[in-house]
Amino acid sequence: MKFVKNDQTAVFALGGLGEIGKNTYGVQFQDEIILIDSGIKFPEDELLGIDYVIPDYTYLVQNQDKVKGLFITHGHEDHIGGIPYLLREINVPIYAGKLAMGLIRNKLDEHGLLRNAKLNTIQEDDVIKFRKTSVSFFRTTHSIPDSFGIVVKTPPGNVVHTGDFKFDFTPVGEAANLTKMAEIGKEGVLCLLSDSTNSEIPGFTMSEKVVGENINEIFDRVDGRLIFATFASNIYRLQQVVEAAVKHNRKVAVFGRSMESAIKIGQELGYIQAPKNTFIEGNQINRFPADEITILCTGSQGEAMAALSRIANGTHRQIQIIPGDTVVFSSSPIPGNTISVSRTIDKLYRAGADVVHGKLSNIHTSGHGSQEEQKLMLRLIRPKYFMPIHGEYRMLKEHEKLAAMCDVDPDNSFVMDNGDVLALGKDSAGVAGKIPSGSIYVDGRGIGDIGNIVLRDRRILSEEGLVIVVVSINMKEFKIASGPDIISRGFVYMRESEDLINEAQKLVSTHLEKVMERRTTQWSEIKNQITDTIAPFLYEKTKRRPMVLPIIMEV
Amino acid sequence: MKFVKNDQTAVFALGGLGEIGKNTYGVQFQDEIILIDSGIKFPEDELLGIDYVIPDYTYLVQNQDKVKGLFITHGHEDHIGGIPYLLREINVPIYAGKLAMGLIRNKLDEHGLLRNAKLNTIQEDDVIKFRKTSVSFFRTTHSIPDSFGIVVKTPPGNVVHTGDFKFDFTPVGEAANLTKMAEIGKEGVLCLLSDSTNSEIPGFTMSEKVVGENINEIFDRVDGRLIFATFASNIYRLQQVVEAAVKHNRKVAVFGRSMESAIKIGQELGYIQAPKNTFIEGNQINRFPADEITILCTGSQGEAMAALSRIANGTHRQIQIIPGDTVVFSSSPIPGNTISVSRTIDKLYRAGADVVHGKLSNIHTSGHGSQEEQKLMLRLIRPKYFMPIHGEYRMLKEHEKLAAMCDVDPDNSFVMDNGDVLALGKDSAGVAGKIPSGSIYVDGRGIGDIGNIVLRDRRILSEEGLVIVVVSINMKEFKIASGPDIISRGFVYMRESEDLINEAQKLVSTHLEKVMERRTTQWSEIKNQITDTIAPFLYEKTKRRPMVLPIIMEV
Repeated sequence: MKFVKNDQTAVFALGGLGEIGKNTYGVQFQDEIILIDSGIKFPEDELLGIDYVIPDYTYLVQNQDKVKGLFITHGHEDHIGGIPYLLREINVPIYAGKLAMGLIRNKLDEHGLLRNAKLNTIQEDDVIKFRKTSVSFFRTTHSIPDSFGIVVKTPPGNVVHTGDFKFDFTPVGEAANLTKMAEIGKEGVLCLLSDSTNSEIPGFTMSEKVVGENINEIFDRVDGRLIFATFASNIYRLQQVVEAAVKHNRKVAVFGRSMESAIKIGQELGYIQAPKNTFIEGNQINRFPADEITILCTGSQGEAMAALSRIANGTHRQIQIIPGDTVVFSSSPIPGNTISVSRTIDKLYRAGADVVHGKLSNIHTSGHGSQEEQKLMLRLIRPKYFMPIHGEYRMLKEHEKLAAMCDVDPDNSFVMDNGDVLALGKDSAGVAGKIPSGSIYVDGRGIGDIGNIVLRDRRILSEEGLVIVVVSINMKEFKIASGPDIISRGFVYMRESEDLINEAQKLVSTHLEKVMERRTTQWSEIKNQITDTIAPFLYEKTKRRPMVLPIIMEV
Repeated sequence: MKFVKNDQTAVFALGGLGEIGKNTYGVQFQDEIILIDSGIKFPEDELLGIDYVIPDYTYLVQNQDKVKGLFITHGHEDHIGGIPYLLREINVPIYAGKLAMGLIRNKLDEHGLLRNAKLNTIQEDDVIKFRKTSVSFFRTTHSIPDSFGIVVKTPPGNVVHTGDFKFDFTPVGEAANLTKMAEIGKEGVLCLLSDSTNSEIPGFTMSEKVVGENINEIFDRVDGRLIFATFASNIYRLQQVVEAAVKHNRKVAVFGRSMESAIKIGQELGYIQAPKNTFIEGNQINRFPADEITILCTGSQGEAMAALSRIANGTHRQIQIIPGDTVVFSSSPIPGNTISVSRTIDKLYRAGADVVHGKLSNIHTSGHGSQEEQKLMLRLIRPKYFMPIHGEYRMLKEHEKLAAMCDVDPDNSFVMDNGDVLALGKDSAGVAGKIPSGSIYVDGRGIGDIGNIVLRDRRILSEEGLVIVVVSINMKEFKIASGPDIISRGFVYMRESEDLINEAQKLVSTHLEKVMERRTTQWSEIKNQITDTIAPFLYEKTKRRPMVLPIIMEV
């Protein structure tokens, strides 16, 4: 990094700026790079068929001898999902809290990467020292246990990364360590990187305990079976549902792979506690009366294959909706899932269930702090320089405004893009240059092999379909040996459009004969001629522009 | 309709029940059918490449001699967009208020259907009489001028259809006619069909006047250019922006086809009034200082080709964002557009604009009444039977609960599906049978030619892509004459996957030679063998399942 001076600390992101997801941050002093988080992003709709999006790790690969460790703030996919892909490139030691480490272990095991991984479980008071830098932690509150903020000490000054946080003063698990945050602030912070997710939302985010009260209130009034859908990773929520079930003499049955493994890992690590015999197997639910049953399941986002969607569709192997059932969406739909969630709700209503959902019922709260909490973080940490992270551009900009209200000099705030490098001296800061950054698409086993051309093709195919014109040509005699045949997919239903296809075939045939007379041997020219003949014809007839694929076989 | 008795009135929907959109309702007594509205629906994402969805008109075509008229409640697309498709099937006379008729005229002109259309503009006090039934109107408030509820008098009793409505006591245009509604209720209503869109929202919907005040407040505080994006059909909103502009000595420039035509039609019909010289041409905006400019444009839903999206992308021919610009989204994103809207906002921020958007800024209000307004309608109309319309299933169910609170006997409420027929006698009501209903897809010029097979193909192509294996076979000698060649689209980038493709080619080639030895002439078997050879190979290598399309040419 030539553009950073020897006495400066560089701060950069490979993901997480101007977007939600694939959070991956770096703090570098000379030859020591501290990585913070390694997330994936779930693709938006136009990334057709893509499974995940990960950052471009080029800079880390080129500087792998410098990367001292990967420090994980908490165990959500947008902070740990990239680890298997990163470890394939560089086998960096990983430091994480207890729960995050449990989830990382599972993940690495699935990818066959566990054996060689260097895993270190950390406690809040640990300090991990390297030659020039060191890393310490402070406990925060978020929608998953064991969430930490991270302090990277570097010679020019301390860099603080909040991870995801809210200030829940009445949390379900351990409280945030405000005392330690105040001490960190007092010691002096050169730069704060702070979570911007809810920077557009005024006030304070509702406490998880309030959600618990509302869950209890539902248990109080419902006599039938209770079906709770929520994020499997929200261990606190699961614990609150389990507690309410125990209090109301109900058994708990768990459905959905990620929910089962969350309950398992939560129990193993002591986050989910319940008397013996609270949990029952899925096939036992019919042995108990309706008012003694709670079902915990996946599918709160309307995911097509999740337990709740199958229940709603009537295709679940063990659960059919019966009158008196109440389904609770203890979640809020992520943008992009609104329609699938709303469809699932409709199907449940149609099947005869009562459904509790939506903001008005207060059975969900965000894991991210709103504006007043972001201000509280700024007031505790009291940074000289500020870099809003985690969020789309407009959220970063809003967060910058909040920082200005909390006495951060606007000239000291840096709304950056992925790849931008902030060079921090003791008394100076500025974006000094750029390192490679971007999005790599994961599709099946392929990492990065799907690019814009393939995606463009998928888009055209999805909207307009495909018309193939195939012809065998005898190149010695300049004659059509067979065809032209026309085959289509996703364009029109061929049995019902025979006339259209026959007409197109004749058109190409007549045209090709003329071309043959010219004794052309330029295949690409013949192909272009086929496309130029058939595409306008099809558009005129159908007002659609299918992809036209001419195939010529030489015999 | 054999299942409806001779002294009963049938009420049914071809669209609009259990969905938002394609509203099309019928009230039939013996041989007289009164149609109410004829809407389209915009397709959800999984309907790849589909432009619109319209109802199945089979029942109307089969009974076209009975259809007396199509009565339009108001001029929104989900109430008038189906008219060109309906008129192609049956040329029914159309009755509509002034603005709706203006919009219908434009639409029919575009479709070349204006000349033969039978159009009748109605006033609130008109009564349209047929032999056994008659139709009258009452003025409502909604987000477009000239919105009416409809009363169909039939021998068993009166059927009332609210259209879309809210109760805006301080509207921008004419007030709702509560007096007439009360009189209709007093006269006696057999069945009420009422708008359920906002039945999940407590309280009262904010008045359009409050939006106007907030718009004015923005004009008061902003010094730079003001760019307003909203629905073109919301003539009241346009009028409020124009009024605020005039008050603040700003000119108004209009961008986007639908916005230009809304302003034109709004001025012609007198809904939009402004002093001479208020409106300027798009190419004149740079002749005025920033604080004298207002831009009204399309694109409030993040639509890719709309004016605002092009401004945000920096590809607009006449407008580039300059520092000091403020963009106002006077709208709320329709579910499904959340992501594209949010991306447009981000780009505008990046380009340097300030952006006002979201619920907190109160610069938009719904056109639909919330729970208290739905109750008010029930209390005014006092129906014996009740049928919630316009909305997804859960909204209809919620509306049913509201009706029960307002003294409608729960046994007298009918939450129905499209196609269900409600048979109403003087003292009886019940769902008596079903008529054909369903969704017809419009894609380009094709109406109903895209079915599930084509959509399934588009889905596979969009997610996994396509692999074509083409081979010429000499059927006399049972030899491969040319190929096999492998061509892919949307699967992998072929230049970078040469090895994979070569290997697949060899595999097919070896296999085909064996098949040839057996002297098979069953093409379908050969094709299956090709698919069965290559598909598992590609899945193993890539974990993707592209569509495999074997093509055999006989030479």
